Amino acid sequence: MVTETADNPSGTVQSDTTSGAAFSAKGMTVEDFFEISNGEWKSQRSSHNLVWGQFEAVTSEIKIEALPSSDEKVIELCKQNDVSADDILLSLSMSWEGESDWDDDEVMSGSTVMSVIKDGPTKGRLLRSMGYAEEIPAVGQWEMTPDGVFVLNTFYDAAAAEERIWFATPDLRMRVSQIRTSSGRGIVTASFSTEIRS
Amino acid sequence: MVTETADNPSGTVQSDTTSGAAFSAKGMTVEDFFEISNGEWKSQRSSHNLVWGQFEAVTSEIKIEALPSSDEKVIELCKQNDVSADDILLSLSMSWEGESDWDDDEVMSGSTVMSVIKDGPTKGRLLRSMGYAEEIPAVGQWEMTPDGVFVLNTFYDAAAAEERIWFATPDLRMRVSQIRTSSGRGIVTASFSTEIRS
Repeated sequence: MVTETADNPSGTVQSDTTSGAAFSAKGMTVEDFFEISNGEWKSQRSSHNLVWGQFEAVTSEIKIEALPSSDEKVIELCKQNDVSADDILLSLSMSWEGESDWDDDEVMSGSTVMSVIKDGPTKGRLLRSMGYAEEIPAVGQWEMTPDGVFVLNTFYDAAAAEERIWFATPDLRMRVSQIRTSSGRGIVTASFSTEIRS
Repeated sequence: MVTETADNPSGTVQSDTTSGAAFSAKGMTVEDFFEISNGEWKSQRSSHNLVWGQFEAVTSEIKIEALPSSDEKVIELCKQNDVSADDILLSLSMSWEGESDWDDDEVMSGSTVMSVIKDGPTKGRLLRSMGYAEEIPAVGQWEMTPDGVFVLNTFYDAAAAEERIWFATPDLRMRVSQIRTSSGRGIVTASFSTEIRS
């Protein structure tokens, strides 16, 4: 799945997990990105409430699995969005279970199904059975930057989310999310996740 | 200081501070980046210790001021690095005062002088009177990505730091830093700062 690029002439993922120095995400394709996203991850997430200056710390375990286009959850997602299964590049299921330092007793858990559609070499749509800012189905616009960052913009009824996800090493994924109200009040929450392959 | 680009054909910084939707950092030049970095900022920083899974929350106030090349601190920095003052693109002083949730009693404060040298249209060196990972003078390599992210790599005696800094809006700066040991033990700390203009 890894293609040859100017920054990666040998066409291999540099998978030296003992050193962050060797790895560069530059030129990563969306196919590579989802390929190495598969697996189990231990996540630390810090959220900043920018209005009140508050911090929240969340630890969770995340599981990402590739799904075939023939999976009934993918077929259902396609139907909901009036999309043909032939247009799907790849699909995955993501589930998580986590705890916040704001409420130690409550375990947060959930799962979502996602399908990626490619509308150009480095951009497309992402269908989700459940959104990030609001717990409803959502369609986002994604783009892979030359730097290897997967950027996803999703517009909900009352909010808009931008997520930037990239690999610091093949076993360390980073994610910066920002949520703004669609009423034009600016960015209200920003969060940072570090996800280590377990 | 703002130049015309494909992504910003009017050549203006879109400064609608009430909505994150209108602003894009794409195509931002290093001159623009430092121009709008000037001022006073309220910072929230979350650090993730990736080895122990710990969180640290730091709040601080940061002040960034442009310095003329004739400033004696800039001249001193040039001397230390055997660089001619004529090669300096711009200089600034940065000072901060902050508190960590790990130690409420201790106020952390400091200041540093930085000079930016341009070695190509989108890359160069950054001289610092005091480093980020270690409190010694440091020379880093910077690059502006097409996406408008200022990426700074600095190698110290016992560690290496990568910082990625970008504007979410003209009044909201974000920064992701990662520190790895130079002995090849991988990335040990990652942190995320949101800085709001005060």
